[in-house]
Amino acid sequence: LNTVSGVGVDQELISAVPSHNPTFVERNFTAEEISYCRSQPDPAASFAARWTGKEAVFKSLGVSSKGASASMKDIAILPDESGVPQVTLTGDAQAAAASKGISKILVSLSHSENVAIAFAQASS
Amino acid sequence: LNTVSGVGVDQELISAVPSHNPTFVERNFTAEEISYCRSQPDPAASFAARWTGKEAVFKSLGVSSKGASASMKDIAILPDESGVPQVTLTGDAQAAAASKGISKILVSLSHSENVAIAFAQASS
Amino acid sequence: LNTVSGVGVDQELISAVPSHNPTFVERNFTAEEISYCRSQPDPAASFAARWTGKEAVFKSLGVSSKGASASMKDIAILPDESGVPQVTLTGDAQAAAASKGISKILVSLSHSENVAIAFAQASS
Repeated sequence: LNTVSGVGVDQELISAVPSHNPTFVERNFTAEEISYCRSQPDPAASFAARWTGKEAVFKSLGVSSKGASASMKDIAILPDESGVPQVTLTGDAQAAAASKGISKILVSLSHSENVAIAFAQASS
Repeated sequence: LNTVSGVGVDQELISAVPSHNPTFVERNFTAEEISYCRSQPDPAASFAARWTGKEAVFKSLGVSSKGASASMKDIAILPDESGVPQVTLTGDAQAAAASKGISKILVSLSHSENVAIAFAQASS
Repeated sequence: LNTVSGVGVDQELISAVPSHNPTFVERNFTAEEISYCRSQPDPAASFAARWTGKEAVFKSLGVSSKGASASMKDIAILPDESGVPQVTLTGDAQAAAASKGISKILVSLSHSENVAIAFAQASS
């Protein structure tokens, strides 16, 4: 119980995350994530931080990657009322977590002027 | 018992942390932290790494931010005899941890030439 | 049981890790790691990411550093069949983990164009 089964870290140059590309955004972010990121002072940084969060969560699941073209929409990250990012899994990500006995995923996001990074931890 | 309740990651450009500003330093660092950082080969990097550590610890507490102007002095980070950074909470940070049932916080710090990063994990 | 006892984070500029230097490589990487890194699309980035992983794992052990010249060969990091990096300890690193009651170490690696980062977590 409450055994940590996986960790994940990811970083990206904010300029390398194509958040100005509607196809990329709609493929990888939920409507609520898009709405949230667009409401932030620096939407590109918010999209990039969330993108690294999705990658970090994926790594924490410990499953094989489906390749760079796989959608990340089934890993959604939105702040709770305290501003703490919460992870919601659906579809393939939810199935992967269930198959591994993962019941909780914690994530933290950070961005500086140029770089976004994230850390995630999956536990049973 | 020993359930991880929160994680936190933070990064800053070392040049973006105003460690040359005595008001900033005295507001956010304890006397022991100041003494330690000033004794290091690169004080600016040490202050910046410790600053990201405080931010990462704060995030791991999972409480609402009091804003960018809040003091970080009640999250102190100093190395033990093995060089492993240890977290000591006082004041509001201690109260926040107690209210969440957090009894242990682990932190790790790193800096390269330009960037400081930190990771923290809070558990019951 | 399954108590997290230490965490570690590390980052390096990829250009600062002398992976073109055979003495450095043979001193710090196992034959399997060298073979793996050289098979990757960007060997320098793979060596650098693995190097930060070794540093992060070392920090997670919570033991005193033997200095910058210590070999990191006894902390080996290789992907499993799903691509998830797995840590194998030998020699001094294995002894340090045993003395601390550490039975599991999780690690995650990431590199962007210029920077490699890693996170590690040691638990009983």
